[in-house]
Amino acid sequence: MLPKPDNYMFTVQSRDKETRARTGLLRTAHGDVPTPVFIPVGTAGTVKGILHRDLLEDIGAKIILGNAYHLYLRPGTDIIEKAGGLHRFMSWDLPVLTDSGGYQVFSLADNRKLTDEGALFRSHIDGSEHIFTPENTIDIQRIIGADIMMALDECAPFPCDYRYAKKSVSLTHNWLERAVRRFRETEPFWGKNQVLFPIVQGSTFDDLRKLSAEFVVTADMEGNAIGGLSVGEPAEEMYRIIEIVNEILPEEKPRYLMGVGTPVNILEAIERGIDMFDCVLPTRNGRNGMLFTGEGIINVRNKKWATDFSPVDPEGPSTVSLYYSKAYLRHLVISGEILGAQIASIHNLAFYLRLVDEARRKIEEGDFKRWKNSMTNKLSERL
Amino acid sequence: MLPKPDNYMFTVQSRDKETRARTGLLRTAHGDVPTPVFIPVGTAGTVKGILHRDLLEDIGAKIILGNAYHLYLRPGTDIIEKAGGLHRFMSWDLPVLTDSGGYQVFSLADNRKLTDEGALFRSHIDGSEHIFTPENTIDIQRIIGADIMMALDECAPFPCDYRYAKKSVSLTHNWLERAVRRFRETEPFWGKNQVLFPIVQGSTFDDLRKLSAEFVVTADMEGNAIGGLSVGEPAEEMYRIIEIVNEILPEEKPRYLMGVGTPVNILEAIERGIDMFDCVLPTRNGRNGMLFTGEGIINVRNKKWATDFSPVDPEGPSTVSLYYSKAYLRHLVISGEILGAQIASIHNLAFYLRLVDEARRKIEEGDFKRWKNSMTNKLSERL
Repeated sequence: MLPKPDNYMFTVQSRDKETRARTGLLRTAHGDVPTPVFIPVGTAGTVKGILHRDLLEDIGAKIILGNAYHLYLRPGTDIIEKAGGLHRFMSWDLPVLTDSGGYQVFSLADNRKLTDEGALFRSHIDGSEHIFTPENTIDIQRIIGADIMMALDECAPFPCDYRYAKKSVSLTHNWLERAVRRFRETEPFWGKNQVLFPIVQGSTFDDLRKLSAEFVVTADMEGNAIGGLSVGEPAEEMYRIIEIVNEILPEEKPRYLMGVGTPVNILEAIERGIDMFDCVLPTRNGRNGMLFTGEGIINVRNKKWATDFSPVDPEGPSTVSLYYSKAYLRHLVISGEILGAQIASIHNLAFYLRLVDEARRKIEEGDFKRWKNSMTNKLSERL
Repeated sequence: MLPKPDNYMFTVQSRDKETRARTGLLRTAHGDVPTPVFIPVGTAGTVKGILHRDLLEDIGAKIILGNAYHLYLRPGTDIIEKAGGLHRFMSWDLPVLTDSGGYQVFSLADNRKLTDEGALFRSHIDGSEHIFTPENTIDIQRIIGADIMMALDECAPFPCDYRYAKKSVSLTHNWLERAVRRFRETEPFWGKNQVLFPIVQGSTFDDLRKLSAEFVVTADMEGNAIGGLSVGEPAEEMYRIIEIVNEILPEEKPRYLMGVGTPVNILEAIERGIDMFDCVLPTRNGRNGMLFTGEGIINVRNKKWATDFSPVDPEGPSTVSLYYSKAYLRHLVISGEILGAQIASIHNLAFYLRLVDEARRKIEEGDFKRWKNSMTNKLSERL
């Protein structure tokens, strides 16, 4: 076994007195990330519709997410390897976290089939046959050069019956053991430290979630993730599962809630001790005209905004939020203009990052609980 | 008749000794534009895929083009009027030139029909019935608040027989008289000076072009345009027509060549005394992966660029040209990622604007002809 990497570290910096919320610092080979953090999703090596400069300067992203499934299929690991890793391929010097691809195999790929070996699937792009195993998804993420890699898991659908969920957890655990073994047997591909996060599964069944969290803890990785939430279950069930799992996941390691969620979901999860988030909501829904603003949620396609010439968001999380009007953005979105997707994506991501930054500040100031309660109504209001 | 507007002016600043090329300054109510100038096309109130800040800072646009046909249909002149004109609607403070919509009626709209009154058509968006007349297209452009308005014309297809071309020129001239009358009877809608440019038509028939140029000159507007070129005819025919027409269009007024063209077309036209250009080529072809670079033309979809990690264009007309690699841009374009369209559009427009700027400098320095000859081979080379 390799010695513990000494350039990776998570430090809890402050704890809220009334809740489990905390702030921290995640140290990676490509820089430090204050937590809680929202990670913009850059599926195929691009946060859709956003130039890197805007991601860095206007949105203030400190880390982005890539997806092993997408990157493996296109451009392919051969090209990423020739480029010197994903960071160099896409000209991004800050940290990258990669999802292993398990979720995409189940949500995107055709003809998927689980075997003892791994997940067989056909590419959604050209129908070609592939297999993802716990081992080769580590190898792929090593080549990509992700600062934080994820173990291959099965994300059970919602709803799913107990029997299916139990079998699925067992498969995920078996895969986790193999992923950890491969992780320990291999070294960073590009000489820069890489860490692996295991993923807690178990659908909405409390006992399976406990079992999975306990198993995940034994892997003793540098951080832990919770998967399989925000897949259709009521928010209250998600919050309950987070509480159960976070009782078990160690305090001193970062906790990453995968694929969640709305601004309210995020504040509720921060309150319950989550440190890291990613979600396509701000970009995907933004492209379709859904805007998260300081005043509430706007569907900018709605006729009521046609002659509203006030800024997209007067609270202005990004420069585009103040520069462009709701009426203009509505025109762009309705006309299918690329610029509409650009403005909405920059604004929404900036809104998410500012919100999580503010949560961090409120935790440090000891005022998180009151602030969170005052925010949740406003954040879920539809204008 | 109103007195001549005194805040509009074109000044020829320098003339090339060997060719008809010249530099000038176009003064509009929204600012000055050095010529020769390439005008980025912002069809529906947006230069596709480009934030205004990048248009201003990275590309250096000094004027953009809007399209009356598109803007009239969506968002509609009612909304643009409520916003206080297009400049305010789209948050763009520099000059705007609008095409009257004639070209779009013939290229985009359904069920178009020419009557004495004007052009009947159905919207390509929802099939609704509309009519464009020489008068109402002036009214629409007044409400839009265009600094430079264009007269409604018929752009004859290529090839077209002499009889058709002759009839078409006659219609265009009839429409021009009516447009000029309406223009003279009305005042700027927003209190800021607006000028009208007539358009020379006549397909590739020398006598019709002469006839049309002579007619257009009698309108005595502040500038003149040449339409109906770069519609499929050989480049040499286009250059010949430009020469014939520019013999007639007055030296002291700006000459605008509509919808042209490739970088080589533009240099050839500058040599023949053209001052203003617009074309969708840099943005439309850019979105499809065609890049104009200092070394030649690149189809970035081509496999040969898959592992070329050098910058999009080492000569770097824009920051994105240097920041991103050819291999990365290829990946984005092939994957249908919005960011691919963004990078290619910014780069290509910056390339066009730098080229025209350089032409201006070379004319001033008295070195235009030699420079142009040295550029044309490189510019048309396909890498």
